[in-house]
Amino acid sequence: MWDSGADAGLLSPVRAGSAVEAATGDTAFVQAMLDAEAALTRALAEAGRAPADAARAVVAAARAERYDIRGLALRARSGGNPVIPLVADLTAAVAAEDEAAAEWVHRGATSQDILDTATMLVAARALPLIVADLDRTAAALARLAEAHRDTPLPGRTLTQHAVPTTFGLKAAGWRALVLDARDRLAALRPPAQLGGAAGTLAAFEDGVGLLGRFAAETGLAEPGLPWHTLRTPVADLGCALAFTVGALGKAAADVLVLTRTEIGEVAEGSGGGSSAMPHKSNPVRATLIAAAARQAPALAATLLGALTAEDERPAGAWHAEWQPLRELLRLAGGAARDAVELAESLRVFPDRMTDHLQLTGGLIVSERITAALAPRLGRSRAKELLTRASRRAAEEGTGLVAALAREPEVAKALPAEELRTLTDPSAYTGAAPALVARALRRTAHHHDG
Amino acid sequence: MWDSGADAGLLSPVRAGSAVEAATGDTAFVQAMLDAEAALTRALAEAGRAPADAARAVVAAARAERYDIRGLALRARSGGNPVIPLVADLTAAVAAEDEAAAEWVHRGATSQDILDTATMLVAARALPLIVADLDRTAAALARLAEAHRDTPLPGRTLTQHAVPTTFGLKAAGWRALVLDARDRLAALRPPAQLGGAAGTLAAFEDGVGLLGRFAAETGLAEPGLPWHTLRTPVADLGCALAFTVGALGKAAADVLVLTRTEIGEVAEGSGGGSSAMPHKSNPVRATLIAAAARQAPALAATLLGALTAEDERPAGAWHAEWQPLRELLRLAGGAARDAVELAESLRVFPDRMTDHLQLTGGLIVSERITAALAPRLGRSRAKELLTRASRRAAEEGTGLVAALAREPEVAKALPAEELRTLTDPSAYTGAAPALVARALRRTAHHHDG
Amino acid sequence: MWDSGADAGLLSPVRAGSAVEAATGDTAFVQAMLDAEAALTRALAEAGRAPADAARAVVAAARAERYDIRGLALRARSGGNPVIPLVADLTAAVAAEDEAAAEWVHRGATSQDILDTATMLVAARALPLIVADLDRTAAALARLAEAHRDTPLPGRTLTQHAVPTTFGLKAAGWRALVLDARDRLAALRPPAQLGGAAGTLAAFEDGVGLLGRFAAETGLAEPGLPWHTLRTPVADLGCALAFTVGALGKAAADVLVLTRTEIGEVAEGSGGGSSAMPHKSNPVRATLIAAAARQAPALAATLLGALTAEDERPAGAWHAEWQPLRELLRLAGGAARDAVELAESLRVFPDRMTDHLQLTGGLIVSERITAALAPRLGRSRAKELLTRASRRAAEEGTGLVAALAREPEVAKALPAEELRTLTDPSAYTGAAPALVARALRRTAHHHDG
Amino acid sequence: MWDSGADAGLLSPVRAGSAVEAATGDTAFVQAMLDAEAALTRALAEAGRAPADAARAVVAAARAERYDIRGLALRARSGGNPVIPLVADLTAAVAAEDEAAAEWVHRGATSQDILDTATMLVAARALPLIVADLDRTAAALARLAEAHRDTPLPGRTLTQHAVPTTFGLKAAGWRALVLDARDRLAALRPPAQLGGAAGTLAAFEDGVGLLGRFAAETGLAEPGLPWHTLRTPVADLGCALAFTVGALGKAAADVLVLTRTEIGEVAEGSGGGSSAMPHKSNPVRATLIAAAARQAPALAATLLGALTAEDERPAGAWHAEWQPLRELLRLAGGAARDAVELAESLRVFPDRMTDHLQLTGGLIVSERITAALAPRLGRSRAKELLTRASRRAAEEGTGLVAALAREPEVAKALPAEELRTLTDPSAYTGAAPALVARALRRTAHHHDG
Repeated sequence: MWDSGADAGLLSPVRAGSAVEAATGDTAFVQAMLDAEAALTRALAEAGRAPADAARAVVAAARAERYDIRGLALRARSGGNPVIPLVADLTAAVAAEDEAAAEWVHRGATSQDILDTATMLVAARALPLIVADLDRTAAALARLAEAHRDTPLPGRTLTQHAVPTTFGLKAAGWRALVLDARDRLAALRPPAQLGGAAGTLAAFEDGVGLLGRFAAETGLAEPGLPWHTLRTPVADLGCALAFTVGALGKAAADVLVLTRTEIGEVAEGSGGGSSAMPHKSNPVRATLIAAAARQAPALAATLLGALTAEDERPAGAWHAEWQPLRELLRLAGGAARDAVELAESLRVFPDRMTDHLQLTGGLIVSERITAALAPRLGRSRAKELLTRASRRAAEEGTGLVAALAREPEVAKALPAEELRTLTDPSAYTGAAPALVARALRRTAHHHDG
Repeated sequence: MWDSGADAGLLSPVRAGSAVEAATGDTAFVQAMLDAEAALTRALAEAGRAPADAARAVVAAARAERYDIRGLALRARSGGNPVIPLVADLTAAVAAEDEAAAEWVHRGATSQDILDTATMLVAARALPLIVADLDRTAAALARLAEAHRDTPLPGRTLTQHAVPTTFGLKAAGWRALVLDARDRLAALRPPAQLGGAAGTLAAFEDGVGLLGRFAAETGLAEPGLPWHTLRTPVADLGCALAFTVGALGKAAADVLVLTRTEIGEVAEGSGGGSSAMPHKSNPVRATLIAAAARQAPALAATLLGALTAEDERPAGAWHAEWQPLRELLRLAGGAARDAVELAESLRVFPDRMTDHLQLTGGLIVSERITAALAPRLGRSRAKELLTRASRRAAEEGTGLVAALAREPEVAKALPAEELRTLTDPSAYTGAAPALVARALRRTAHHHDG
Repeated sequence: MWDSGADAGLLSPVRAGSAVEAATGDTAFVQAMLDAEAALTRALAEAGRAPADAARAVVAAARAERYDIRGLALRARSGGNPVIPLVADLTAAVAAEDEAAAEWVHRGATSQDILDTATMLVAARALPLIVADLDRTAAALARLAEAHRDTPLPGRTLTQHAVPTTFGLKAAGWRALVLDARDRLAALRPPAQLGGAAGTLAAFEDGVGLLGRFAAETGLAEPGLPWHTLRTPVADLGCALAFTVGALGKAAADVLVLTRTEIGEVAEGSGGGSSAMPHKSNPVRATLIAAAARQAPALAATLLGALTAEDERPAGAWHAEWQPLRELLRLAGGAARDAVELAESLRVFPDRMTDHLQLTGGLIVSERITAALAPRLGRSRAKELLTRASRRAAEEGTGLVAALAREPEVAKALPAEELRTLTDPSAYTGAAPALVARALRRTAHHHDG
Repeated sequence: MWDSGADAGLLSPVRAGSAVEAATGDTAFVQAMLDAEAALTRALAEAGRAPADAARAVVAAARAERYDIRGLALRARSGGNPVIPLVADLTAAVAAEDEAAAEWVHRGATSQDILDTATMLVAARALPLIVADLDRTAAALARLAEAHRDTPLPGRTLTQHAVPTTFGLKAAGWRALVLDARDRLAALRPPAQLGGAAGTLAAFEDGVGLLGRFAAETGLAEPGLPWHTLRTPVADLGCALAFTVGALGKAAADVLVLTRTEIGEVAEGSGGGSSAMPHKSNPVRATLIAAAARQAPALAATLLGALTAEDERPAGAWHAEWQPLRELLRLAGGAARDAVELAESLRVFPDRMTDHLQLTGGLIVSERITAALAPRLGRSRAKELLTRASRRAAEEGTGLVAALAREPEVAKALPAEELRTLTDPSAYTGAAPALVARALRRTAHHHDG
């Protein structure tokens, strides 16, 4: 029965086999729920409100492999969440060893306390895995940025060559986004949840004190208030995770452009094969990241929408968070893993980049020549002349230098030698190298807007 | 390994154990991919381009239980889709029985042909399950509409009592939406996909002819063109499925209002329990539908976004469809199942409804009295008087009749007896019964905007 | 005051100045609301329930230019919708001419009747504008498909050259999507809305009959039921419009690839300029369509989410539809206009396409050679040899023919002459021309999945 | 022409007439673009690279009222953004006063520098308006929380009475979300943008130094790198704004429940009227906030999706940000304004709350009685008895006390007197008052997860 209808990652290669996938599966969630129940009993025991033996018995029974996960999923339908059947099974398991201890299982808690705490435990366990992969990605990108600080290639805007830039600046930009994502994930402090039936902790003596003890036992942050319907932690996770996937998606989008057959300025270390064409070497890592980036924003939207949660437990908004949040963790974890592979193995072809700088026959530096002519001919006249020469160069396939040579005004203003110097694209990378240096001074722990 | 990170429905009670869940799991997808491969070889054989024996051998090997699904998921990472490893395994399985037949596996096809066809097979198998549940839901709602055609209850707008309506009209409205959903799902004709490496069918002789044969073998519709990057079928599925969930979400939203403790005009047949409170009887079916309705639109948005698929196979847009489409099928299938349970077991309490008609002390028919006074006092004067009397009735807690009695103009214009008749809410349900009758004349197969 | 905070299209060049923009502005909405009010009075008069003079007076006053639109927007805040102040102003305007007629303004209706009917009128007026532009786009694409039925260019998958296709097939595919969009828009039948305070038509005598008369007066379809909270018409519009934008987005995505400086296989008729670079000729039409395609899905999601509308008028779900639906109409209308310009002026460069077919040194037909070798060497051996030769050809920069020449098995199986023929990419476009012919047989009015 | 197709807020009452609407209109955007141009010339002058006179002339011409905004919108179509025509007009305006100064307009910049900087200026001007309204809302909610710290009312979960809570705790929860939103908005530091044609600052001498000067002149933060395609600032704004709207949406959702005719525990200070029903007093402020909360998440999703921006300026992703970001600012600004009105005028009816605590006949404290019985009868036996008594109490309409009295085991274990005390709902609010006190110690500037 376990596999009937189950999802083992077949349709999500971005996450299949990743550490985050294992950390967010149904088994991991059941374990986290059991950890939450165990932490509650330990907190009660520590507060002198439950026997230490009871806590020990619950802890002993709190091992996911002892429970029938598919059965829990099916029995969750009746009450609408998996905690209700799990509490029943855990109680039975504890009772089998120590009847008295069973009295203390789930004492004073409500389902949402356990499921929310479990979700935050799962998140707290998955986030460092993602952060570690972002760190590795950032390190690999730093190496690329350093190595190619001065490697010129065409800057492209609206798909067209604009002016030159350097590959190092591209890599430094990717890294800046990775660090932005890292900062946002690392700043998250998933809180424990404990409120009881309606968030008043009424079933506990000294509920407020217990909130702190319980959080400490789980290792999660202590919330200011029970947050049954104050869903900041979930919305924050949603935004930070979708941001992470999108940030990686920028690098993937660039890699997909630069690996095009006609461009070929970079290639993935080991491209993916094809079932039809023996020669294909596809940018699969970038493709999977791009696919994740197309899915994440909508999932974050669902989580942001769940902020409007009525009453002390909403009829739907809470339940609507579970799958999207897990899927976001998986997409971020999977994309981060693929980003490591992509960044660490990216092959860069500076010669191709240099070749491409010549593709427009000098048009790529039209801005520079305009600037050089402006003080001599006036800026609007300079722009006019360049526009005309650019059009002619494009239409006739001659380079810009040749086209400008046919403009007597230009020839007079700019000696041929100077013109030739000005039209060397690799000498027009502006502040790119300086910006790379500046960007690399940012470390992972420093915030930078 | 099968369960490491797998999702067996624990976080999605709306679909756990449903027929659609089984029809859309990883196993079902692998079977559908194998069915697509088998159909291709059969089509080739039928066209006289492959030996009949080869087709038989492929068909024989095309049974999902023979393949390691988790392994396929893991190996899918290399090329970015699960067809590549599956073709390898299928080829090996066929070769083990009939070496020559193995030559014909996947002949001329590309991964996308198989995965798209499989996805449409999965959809084509899941849709009738959903339609059947919508039909059952519509039938149950028809019974409710019929039975309560004249049962008056407060119409509510912006949370406030407006004028009376009938419960039958509410149920008829829910049914109209269910039929709208049914019509949209039933109109879908998921097509087979066959195009080869780039949609030109170049590896086949008479590719166009084969397209028709292949579609016939799969039982799916024949497309006008290979649709590798013409994603109408996926977008249509996304919209129709999200519409379905949303349509059911309307009924759920109403049930959630009407079951509130203070309202209690309906109740779910068997409410869900609570882990903390023995007395709770929660509207769990409506809650799960409502949760699905909060998730579906974002998934449809991802599918609509995937229409912008560059080239002959996009690097990301295609891969981004797989999970969201499956999840939408599951949410629609699960919500439809819960809708059956909800509609078939809904308990209706006409006495509570009648009681509530009195709650506003007659204000609920203020519109009617205004209309009666208008010809006698002028419409704006009538509205003025009613507004004043309404405010006074609300503030002083007297009924509207009493408040109006204190307005000499009204007393003169409307004899007390007539006023009393006019203020009977159950006599002011307007065309509600007629609209119910009209709505029930619509059958499942008739389109009605 | 009109311009304080107003939006005149500055941030949405895709729609600025389009016919749909004018048809969907605040003025157009006010006119449509007035048209709805006028239609109501006419319907009442026709039914013998209001004097013909009253209808004439309302019609006379129902001209948007007589009302202060910014003032209406501000006064809409109090009751939450613009109909309430508009009814007040319309009543005053009618009364100024004919006091008695004023009694009949908005008679029996509720705000939602007027606003929903107005929205459908706006949609019904905007849709033909969009359809007309889709028709022009489809016609232009048909010409391109016809003209380039046999023009070979590289088919590209996951950014890499796959096998050849023809430009005609690309254009035919774009056209197929445009026709799909056209079919979906043309199938919409926006209905009038009339239900009164809570959808029971209680303030009318023979409400059901009036529904039909009112619809006829507006020129809109007659709904089966008042649809205050049965939002099928809005969801359908949302899906069809977002589909339209996405369908156009596919062509735009392709144009953006093909116009890249390194590819240059097509160009927009007149590219856009740059504020910095005189030489730039940007694919602006495709860019604006692509930008619309990134915005539309989320707006459709909001409309799909609004299906879950509680009660007889929801507190929020209704109000949340207004801006997103208008914005979707504008994005679709703007994208369709840009698509006309794009398709009618697209410049195609077959020589560039031919050149690119040589870029992979024959790898683009590796599939074909594998197929030719398979019957002679066995398929898996053939694939093995091609994979090795492909890798070597790529690494050493020699063509595939040269690399294969170094494989004795291949040389033996395929005479050099045959090999040369097989490696002519332009002879390997498969069924592309036949598919173009087939696609062009589809007319705008024929559905084709 | 200004009004043809323009949007003056008619369809968005939540923002019509708000301060943020004025701060984000097309006029405000044009002013911000002019401010960016002026800041650039000032920065150049300060760096000694442009004459001080030129800067003065540009500043003098940089007044939005001098430009034809609708004309700019129309001319923006050609190049795809409004900066291109604005630079032309600004240059002409400067030249009319000082021909030489015109040479310095837009010097070295690209359209995106100006539009991005303008967008951040608009955001930086709108954010304090929103924060101020959040502060006022938080203050009003603090007063409510304080005043009703001990006011008991039913806690509701899944629409059903659960256990009691206090209205103060509800208000304190709303405030906590408002402070969370405030913290997120206040932490934003919108950066200036300057990169030139492709982000290399190549047209400037000492581009890196100029970046800092330019930022200082605009009053915006200095970015680490030009962020043409590193869209963290936009994504952060999108998330923080959507969070804000959602946070306010929670309070609105609760108010909408509590104002229902059957519940009536709170009321908006001055409800909205109806065009049909004189008696209606609708919760319009909460409705408009709820409507905003349904729209915001999808807009944030579009912005998160725009992170995947290829190249040095993307063809679509950038353009897709403009309208959604503005709309999000407006929804947040409008919702915050409505939240002030809602919170400052909310009327609370403690007597209704007390009445409702009796509605379940004691079931609302079933958890408490179970807890009291557990030590005496064992927990599972206690729960069993309570479940049976609860069902009987509900079915027979007797209270829980009466139902329990019929259970001899209970009667023996709990003396009647004790039972009566235990069933006083207002004595079972647990830690609610303590939590209120704790929550109120949080000030606006203290982060609290």
